[in-house]
Amino acid sequence: MVTLYDNHLSGNGYKVRLMLTLLGAPFEIVWIDTLKGESHTESFLAINPNGRIPALVDGTFVLPESNAILHYLADGSKFLPEGRETRARILQWMFFEQYSHEPNIAVLRHWFAHLNRPDEGDEVARKRTAGYDALGVMEQHLAAQPYFAGDRYSIADISLYAYTHVAGEGGFDLLSYPAIRDWIDRVAAQPGHITIDDDCGFPIPASR
Amino acid sequence: MVTLYDNHLSGNGYKVRLMLTLLGAPFEIVWIDTLKGESHTESFLAINPNGRIPALVDGTFVLPESNAILHYLADGSKFLPEGRETRARILQWMFFEQYSHEPNIAVLRHWFAHLNRPDEGDEVARKRTAGYDALGVMEQHLAAQPYFAGDRYSIADISLYAYTHVAGEGGFDLLSYPAIRDWIDRVAAQPGHITIDDDCGFPIPASR
Repeated sequence: MVTLYDNHLSGNGYKVRLMLTLLGAPFEIVWIDTLKGESHTESFLAINPNGRIPALVDGTFVLPESNAILHYLADGSKFLPEGRETRARILQWMFFEQYSHEPNIAVLRHWFAHLNRPDEGDEVARKRTAGYDALGVMEQHLAAQPYFAGDRYSIADISLYAYTHVAGEGGFDLLSYPAIRDWIDRVAAQPGHITIDDDCGFPIPASR
Repeated sequence: MVTLYDNHLSGNGYKVRLMLTLLGAPFEIVWIDTLKGESHTESFLAINPNGRIPALVDGTFVLPESNAILHYLADGSKFLPEGRETRARILQWMFFEQYSHEPNIAVLRHWFAHLNRPDEGDEVARKRTAGYDALGVMEQHLAAQPYFAGDRYSIADISLYAYTHVAGEGGFDLLSYPAIRDWIDRVAAQPGHITIDDDCGFPIPASR
C-alpha cells in the first residue's frame, strides 16, 4: 500500500488523491499542514528535500512532484494511453500546467482563499493576465476536442482540472470559457470521480 | 527531418538543440526573435498557441514544451532509460526544473542579461531566494550521485543543465555548490556535447 503525504487545500495533492481513487488502489494519507510549516520539518525534508507536498511513498521508492506521481501511478492504465505522440501530447499539457497555469491560477487561489491576501498589486495583476492567457490556450484546445489528449480522459485532464475547476476561488471568471466549463463537467462526470474536499476516509485533524 | 522553432538566447531551446545533436538526428532550425514579438505572430501562434519557443515539428505532429520534446525525442535512446522508477525519477526532476528552477534561475538570467533589468526589487529578491533554494535541493541530490537519475546521464540532466550552467548570468554564485559544479563539468564532458551558443549550422540573422 502506498502512502501519500498531502495537504487538503492543495490542488496538486488532489490530483493524486483523485488518481489513486480512480485506479482503485489502496492507499493511506498523511496530512501535512503546510501553513503550519509541517512541510519543512526535518522529518518531512527527509522525504522531500524540496519541502513540498504531495509526495508518494511506495515501499522504498519516494516520489515528489504531483505530475510525476500521476505519470508513475497511471502507467499501464487507461489514464495514460500508449502511443508516442499521445504520450508526448499528455506530457506537453502537464508541463504547461506546471509552468503556465499553476503558478498563476493556483497561486492566486492560495493567496486569496487561504492566505487572505486579496490585494491587487502588480504581481497579482501579472498573475491574473498570465492565468487568463493560460485559460485562453486551454479554451482554444478544448473547443476542438473533448479532452487534452484528444478523445480520451487522461492524466493531462486530471492535472489541469485540479486548479481550473476552483479558479473562481482565485478570482478568475470562467464565464467566457464555455469549452473549459463543458470540459469541467465532463471530468466531474467520470465514473469514480471525487471532489477536492473528499478526505478519502482519512479525517483531517480538527484543529485545521 | 524535424524542424525546431527556437531562439538562440533560450535555455529551453538549447535543451532541444543539445538533445537533437546528441541523438545525431538530422534537423533544421527556424530562429524566432522572441524579443521582437515573433513568437506572437499569427503564423507562429498557429504552431504554438501558447506563444513560446521551442516548438518541434515532426511531419504533421507539432509539439511545444521543451521537456515534453526531450521526452519525445529521447524515448528509445540511452538518454531515457527504461524502468518504472527510473522514468518517474527523471520526470520528477523535469517537473522540478519547470516549477522550482526555471521561473527563478532562467527568468533572472533573462531579466539581467537580455532585458537589462538588473534592479533588485521585491520580485527579484523572491526569485533569488527561490532560485538558491532550488540549487540547494540539486546540490544535496548531486552530492550522493553523479546524475539526476542516478548513475546515468539522462534527459533530466539535459533539462537542468540548460539554465544551471549559465546561472551566473542571472547573478547566481555557484561557489558554495561544489557538487553542482562537478556535475556541470561531467555534463559538458559528454561525447557530442555542444554549448548554448552553438548555432548547429543555422546562422542567426545578423540583425539580432
